[in-house]
Amino acid sequence: MRVTQRVKRILASYEGENPGTKGNLARILMNGKLGGTGRLVILPVDQGFEHGPARSFAPNPAAYDPTYHYQLAVDAGLNAYAAPLGMLEAGADSFAGAIPTILKMNSSNSWAVSKDQAITASVSDALRLGCSAIGFTIYPASDYQFEMMEEIRELSEEAKSCGLAVVIWSYPRGGDLSKAGETAVDVTAYAAHMAALLGATIIKVKPPTDHIEQAEAKKVYEQQKIDVSTLSKRIEHVMQSAFNGRRVVVFSGGAAKDTAGLLDEVRSLRDGGANGSIIGRNTFQRPRSEALALLDSVIKIYQGKL
Amino acid sequence: MRVTQRVKRILASYEGENPGTKGNLARILMNGKLGGTGRLVILPVDQGFEHGPARSFAPNPAAYDPTYHYQLAVDAGLNAYAAPLGMLEAGADSFAGAIPTILKMNSSNSWAVSKDQAITASVSDALRLGCSAIGFTIYPASDYQFEMMEEIRELSEEAKSCGLAVVIWSYPRGGDLSKAGETAVDVTAYAAHMAALLGATIIKVKPPTDHIEQAEAKKVYEQQKIDVSTLSKRIEHVMQSAFNGRRVVVFSGGAAKDTAGLLDEVRSLRDGGANGSIIGRNTFQRPRSEALALLDSVIKIYQGKL
Amino acid sequence: MRVTQRVKRILASYEGENPGTKGNLARILMNGKLGGTGRLVILPVDQGFEHGPARSFAPNPAAYDPTYHYQLAVDAGLNAYAAPLGMLEAGADSFAGAIPTILKMNSSNSWAVSKDQAITASVSDALRLGCSAIGFTIYPASDYQFEMMEEIRELSEEAKSCGLAVVIWSYPRGGDLSKAGETAVDVTAYAAHMAALLGATIIKVKPPTDHIEQAEAKKVYEQQKIDVSTLSKRIEHVMQSAFNGRRVVVFSGGAAKDTAGLLDEVRSLRDGGANGSIIGRNTFQRPRSEALALLDSVIKIYQGKL
Amino acid sequence: MRVTQRVKRILASYEGENPGTKGNLARILMNGKLGGTGRLVILPVDQGFEHGPARSFAPNPAAYDPTYHYQLAVDAGLNAYAAPLGMLEAGADSFAGAIPTILKMNSSNSWAVSKDQAITASVSDALRLGCSAIGFTIYPASDYQFEMMEEIRELSEEAKSCGLAVVIWSYPRGGDLSKAGETAVDVTAYAAHMAALLGATIIKVKPPTDHIEQAEAKKVYEQQKIDVSTLSKRIEHVMQSAFNGRRVVVFSGGAAKDTAGLLDEVRSLRDGGANGSIIGRNTFQRPRSEALALLDSVIKIYQGKL
Amino acid sequence: MRVTQRVKRILASYEGENPGTKGNLARILMNGKLGGTGRLVILPVDQGFEHGPARSFAPNPAAYDPTYHYQLAVDAGLNAYAAPLGMLEAGADSFAGAIPTILKMNSSNSWAVSKDQAITASVSDALRLGCSAIGFTIYPASDYQFEMMEEIRELSEEAKSCGLAVVIWSYPRGGDLSKAGETAVDVTAYAAHMAALLGATIIKVKPPTDHIEQAEAKKVYEQQKIDVSTLSKRIEHVMQSAFNGRRVVVFSGGAAKDTAGLLDEVRSLRDGGANGSIIGRNTFQRPRSEALALLDSVIKIYQGKL
Repeated sequence: MRVTQRVKRILASYEGENPGTKGNLARILMNGKLGGTGRLVILPVDQGFEHGPARSFAPNPAAYDPTYHYQLAVDAGLNAYAAPLGMLEAGADSFAGAIPTILKMNSSNSWAVSKDQAITASVSDALRLGCSAIGFTIYPASDYQFEMMEEIRELSEEAKSCGLAVVIWSYPRGGDLSKAGETAVDVTAYAAHMAALLGATIIKVKPPTDHIEQAEAKKVYEQQKIDVSTLSKRIEHVMQSAFNGRRVVVFSGGAAKDTAGLLDEVRSLRDGGANGSIIGRNTFQRPRSEALALLDSVIKIYQGKL
Repeated sequence: MRVTQRVKRILASYEGENPGTKGNLARILMNGKLGGTGRLVILPVDQGFEHGPARSFAPNPAAYDPTYHYQLAVDAGLNAYAAPLGMLEAGADSFAGAIPTILKMNSSNSWAVSKDQAITASVSDALRLGCSAIGFTIYPASDYQFEMMEEIRELSEEAKSCGLAVVIWSYPRGGDLSKAGETAVDVTAYAAHMAALLGATIIKVKPPTDHIEQAEAKKVYEQQKIDVSTLSKRIEHVMQSAFNGRRVVVFSGGAAKDTAGLLDEVRSLRDGGANGSIIGRNTFQRPRSEALALLDSVIKIYQGKL
Repeated sequence: MRVTQRVKRILASYEGENPGTKGNLARILMNGKLGGTGRLVILPVDQGFEHGPARSFAPNPAAYDPTYHYQLAVDAGLNAYAAPLGMLEAGADSFAGAIPTILKMNSSNSWAVSKDQAITASVSDALRLGCSAIGFTIYPASDYQFEMMEEIRELSEEAKSCGLAVVIWSYPRGGDLSKAGETAVDVTAYAAHMAALLGATIIKVKPPTDHIEQAEAKKVYEQQKIDVSTLSKRIEHVMQSAFNGRRVVVFSGGAAKDTAGLLDEVRSLRDGGANGSIIGRNTFQRPRSEALALLDSVIKIYQGKL
Repeated sequence: MRVTQRVKRILASYEGENPGTKGNLARILMNGKLGGTGRLVILPVDQGFEHGPARSFAPNPAAYDPTYHYQLAVDAGLNAYAAPLGMLEAGADSFAGAIPTILKMNSSNSWAVSKDQAITASVSDALRLGCSAIGFTIYPASDYQFEMMEEIRELSEEAKSCGLAVVIWSYPRGGDLSKAGETAVDVTAYAAHMAALLGATIIKVKPPTDHIEQAEAKKVYEQQKIDVSTLSKRIEHVMQSAFNGRRVVVFSGGAAKDTAGLLDEVRSLRDGGANGSIIGRNTFQRPRSEALALLDSVIKIYQGKL
Repeated sequence: MRVTQRVKRILASYEGENPGTKGNLARILMNGKLGGTGRLVILPVDQGFEHGPARSFAPNPAAYDPTYHYQLAVDAGLNAYAAPLGMLEAGADSFAGAIPTILKMNSSNSWAVSKDQAITASVSDALRLGCSAIGFTIYPASDYQFEMMEEIRELSEEAKSCGLAVVIWSYPRGGDLSKAGETAVDVTAYAAHMAALLGATIIKVKPPTDHIEQAEAKKVYEQQKIDVSTLSKRIEHVMQSAFNGRRVVVFSGGAAKDTAGLLDEVRSLRDGGANGSIIGRNTFQRPRSEALALLDSVIKIYQGKL
């Protein structure tokens, strides 16, 4: 497939990256039904690590099988599939070349007291598994935020030198942040900005609420009349905070919700200029046919057809 | 694009390779107009190193520009583009993600007295440039054959550990081989077999003549009534020698020839079960429109349409 | 441009540095409108990391784009541009060779509870991005001061062995220091001295107030009648504390203030013998034309024309 | 100095290089009287190693002093100065930041029987001395050509990863080449092409004669009517062979000759599209005032004023 | 002892060296009776390796004991003592701090057929033994000249990075050089120049004869009327060839000769501007009292008192 002008323009914003990293970003952006549009949908399956298998897969027991997710991502025509080491390994041979994969490099679990994660894979793993990118979560604000940033810095340098792309999940939590603050618009924009400063090729944040958490920031939002009244407007603000739209940003769907609610949210993401969605639980916890229908709708929204 | 059953069967033969290497082989086999058919056409441009720029590019001066070849390979819908370091670097950014590339790691030139080549690139180069494979020439029979085999062994091990595929150009020459012997059917089959034994992911040899070079071999060919009377039959024999068809083998077109002759040869390659062709001079030394027409015919032949 | 006698005298004070590091210091000191005068103005854009994107860029939304700052620094004729990894990468190719850059190696953010920073870049990054220097912040007095000093010692040794210069932001905070103490004249002089002792090529401190924080120091200041009554006198004292003027020291503008106030401050810096200013928020939070006018005035002051 | 559009276009051809290497190429192209024009003149002083001190410097004894050459290059407004380790070290501190330098990494001498060179410096040396590039000689056709190519490959990869540029002196000799063949037009074009394929940032070859050395090439030159009747036409052909003008190529002046002859040659270089000249003996073997006058004329020719 | 202005001027010529290397050069130049004059006398005892023990030490059996030489060098008030590993180790503890030492890193012997030497010590050895410098012999012109140059390049880089000085014995031999050519004035000047280009801190060559070996050079010597009629004039020429006197050059006494002849030679060395002498056999093969008397005369000559 020929790299589209839209995707070429996106690649051109990554001035510091070598052709290998740009090529892997292109592979992701050119794959699937949204290939070439500059929009993307990623399937992430790290729920098992985070919440345990039953909470993740019991609603749709077929999803206990790692190859289920590969097949779902392929059949839905998604851009990429992201998972921790074991999940990727379990289908890596059957699905070699089938879809760009993102190796999630660190993971937490339900029992963790500290707001930190364990590094559970290596860049060599990503290469031998044929991944297009590594993925990494940081928790800005947590007591471990600096350690996490230093970890991704090292992994990112190694991954990029091997031509891989780097996806940063930037999830503020811990420290003095309130629970509501974790998805506040000022906090989310800040989280996206920090991921960009750390050199992320793709940034993942949560859709922001209209809450403004930081007192100092609140003054500026009011003074500068930054419109955060609608989700679309807030997405625009987040995209602006990601180097004025020069970095690819995708938004998670968050907690499982009903289909209409989810599609409405995606419409707002699209209208705000988001590059796309990263949707896990909302798909693999439904029966496969419903998941495929849902993902088809999401893709149609990003294509401007819904 | 969904990996086809045909390509999956090919990948399944590579039992010792990790998913990364299989994925890169899949990228090559799934790209372009022949994507998914198990057939492939590769554009190689190492003529400049081997024969000098004027002999290579003067017949079609546009070809002096390295980006010409990237564009030709893309526009013709080929599977991959192979070239030495400088040629790939010169268009690596503009064509990031546009077509699978093969970094030719060693090179000779018209002035070389010894039947050896210089290593002119590294596996790190291949990764940072986003290549799918490294390429390497060996000269079985030459005084340097063991050094060359040891070099590819080391490079191959490193490349595969990073998920790259390995293409071996297996060109017997030197030692006691006669000039005619270099393309003898027994020699070519032997060359393909050695490349397979060295762990090649893709093997490149020349279309064999019906000459049989080795006295000891001649007895067996006669005794066992191995049919080498037609090019198709000889190709069958070479494919058989490449692990009974379990390795992808492509054949070069050799010196520039007329269109009809070339297409006839490709038909024989196809009928003999060759995986495909690697065509350099015969394309880039013609005007672009003629080259595109020729490549279209070659592809149609492999598609069974011509 | 020929290295001036003034700059040669400055370079001669850096007796322990190799020609590469001196050459990069020369590149900074010879660039822009102040090139060759021994004075310098640096544009630092790490506000986004420290305070978040909206507080940093909303007053002048064009500044959300990383390339805005490169262009501002070039058009204003500044000596150098300093920023974290992602900001530099985003324009590194377009602005290759356009202006000396300083890669800020560590960063904090508004949510950090500990007085520490994360290391977010490497010396290899600085080399591949063509930077002239690395930048690093230490917080003398904080619980993490020794760790930070040990980090810069390692990075500094590596950077200098590769011919890079080293800029240390020396910002006392934490521990028993009062808020007023952070910019006290005795504390600032001490901070500059420690940066010099750590091997800084360029030292960045804040303009000191006439407050004296340390009781033991206060006695000496009074006994020795050290004049700290005016900003100029305090700058003289800081320069003296930086190896009697043998190290280049630049002063930040601090929080955004009105133009007249800022220019008055710069005049005092100049009269006190400061090598220059490092001005971020006060420039990029204004419309571009106003920022250029302001920087032109700052430069004229250092040139003795205003 | 602002990077000109002309230089930006040249940098854009180096698609595989990181911003550091592009920045150092920009430093060379933006320095001196030809800064920004895309043309360049380099002073190389490796004659002492190659021919001994008396043959090199006795005609102008001031040139025995290594600092003489730094000063000559600066005063003449050249783009860069190239020399072996000891020569650069001897003035590295006094001339820090004064002019881009190129560390010549290998050297031969009058007594060498083998067509090889010794590696006499390292990439670390280049970094600590603040060089913009490394320089390396290959002898295509010699018995050592493959070893030399493998040496530059390794040094080049290391140098580029540190943001340095790479200058390759491509001087065919040895093997079956006749003496006249060393500067034959087909041989020179081939030498330039090989240097480009090896990843050279800047290529240095000798001005070609109208001799055609290789029988196989001769046929093509005649058949394709490649005009090699004038030096300008031959230079055009060499530039075309250097990736269709996508690589910077400079030409040596060769043996010392009279001023009028040398300036005529430079005019032909300019008219043929050469990027510039690298002139050693013809300058430093004359009295300083004459050398400066000569270089001024050379520069004026490249500026189109003579 | 205060470093003299004379020595400071010498140190200032070593612009590329770090303070450690300069400090070790200063230690050598400031030690002994000639300390501070810019002249120096070194005792080298590598005869045992080169010619065997009996030929070296039987004329004065006390010299079989390694500590004899340390004591001789100390008592004679020399600047430094140079020897291979075993010789230095044998007195290293007793003479710790007593006199600067130079660890001779490579050695040949009477049975060597090839014009090469074995590396017999390491930079770590030099550091643990408290040496001021490493010493290394190259044989320019020999079949092994490039290997030897590459060896000293690596050792030199390592030694200097540890603050050691580097002494190169530059002894042309082998290849096409005639026996007379080994000490020809053109060859000796060239040998000194090459050592300087290789980065030697101190250069050791043999006093040249008035023979001119190289035909190409002969023309220049005649044309430029280079006066080589007396040893003094020839020494002047060698010093000029060593970066116009910017490198310390010492001359060996060569084969044992009578006292008057030796002192006359030293007077010529002095008058020609040599930095000093390196005298082995002529001292340790005499009884100690005679050796001390001889060295006292040599020193007095360099002091201008004889």
